[in-house]
Amino acid sequence: MRKVILGVAVSLDSFIEGPNGEYNWCFTDQDYGLKEFFKRVDTIFVGRKTYEMSSEMEGGGSGFPKFKEYVFSTTLDKVKKGATIIKGDIKTEVEKIKNEKGKDIWLFGGASLTTSLMNLGLVDELSLAVYPILLGGGKPLFNNIKHRIKLKLVDAKSYASGLVSLTYNIHTL
Amino acid sequence: MRKVILGVAVSLDSFIEGPNGEYNWCFTDQDYGLKEFFKRVDTIFVGRKTYEMSSEMEGGGSGFPKFKEYVFSTTLDKVKKGATIIKGDIKTEVEKIKNEKGKDIWLFGGASLTTSLMNLGLVDELSLAVYPILLGGGKPLFNNIKHRIKLKLVDAKSYASGLVSLTYNIHTL
Repeated sequence: MRKVILGVAVSLDSFIEGPNGEYNWCFTDQDYGLKEFFKRVDTIFVGRKTYEMSSEMEGGGSGFPKFKEYVFSTTLDKVKKGATIIKGDIKTEVEKIKNEKGKDIWLFGGASLTTSLMNLGLVDELSLAVYPILLGGGKPLFNNIKHRIKLKLVDAKSYASGLVSLTYNIHTL
Repeated sequence: MRKVILGVAVSLDSFIEGPNGEYNWCFTDQDYGLKEFFKRVDTIFVGRKTYEMSSEMEGGGSGFPKFKEYVFSTTLDKVKKGATIIKGDIKTEVEKIKNEKGKDIWLFGGASLTTSLMNLGLVDELSLAVYPILLGGGKPLFNNIKHRIKLKLVDAKSYASGLVSLTYNIHTL
């Protein structure tokens, strides 16, 4: 079965955005394993807010490779060409997609979609780029996780820039 | 000058206690560098709540080596023999102690003392044992940090158990 991988940049105090929505703490001086990661995935899951923000920013395009995109939203009626809206029961829909043939799936965010999928036990792997900074506030990576989730560390890599890349499998309950 | 080192166990979602004050997620099957850490420090900083909790739990003793202990409190009048109350201006008092001769100082917690010392720029190093678990809630490691704090990664070590030990120096502002 295809894996759903939450792949995200995070501050050491576990924020994905600063207090004013800033991402300017994410340095991009090198690849940090992204190219390898992109080889593993062919599909991306995004929440409605994230979808709207990235469509706005990039006019619907993106610097990423071409992924099959699923937008999770109960309110949107239309999304850009090539994307698909997921409106129905999340668990059923995601399980269906996970059972289809294909590479793994990148759960891109945002926080609300991440929380839903985590609480439904639909996320298989965490791939975190931990930046050497404390933001002190902002949007937490995890919000309203309902119960403890045990993780299995599968890889830890540190870079001279201070970035630490941590990969965990999520134990099935 | 002596360093103040925040040395603490933390979940991947950056909590130092679970939602009901639990520490039962901290496995202690091995040393995880604690013995080496203990060689570096001879003094411990604790907040009032942490002091009271550990005095209660252990009848004033402890499984730790003998440290010189400073208890930060505006309300306590008396602490156990060998401990010293810090009541006055925190910045002045801590700088005085940092300028005394001795080994480094372990900032043991809790959250409120940690926040005060972080915001006053008095913490020099973070030594985090990141446990492979999401607690979903509880007491955050950092609370009310007022501004971004840039860190310099000095060591990252991962263990077969999934624990990742991360050491950062704090950039002076």
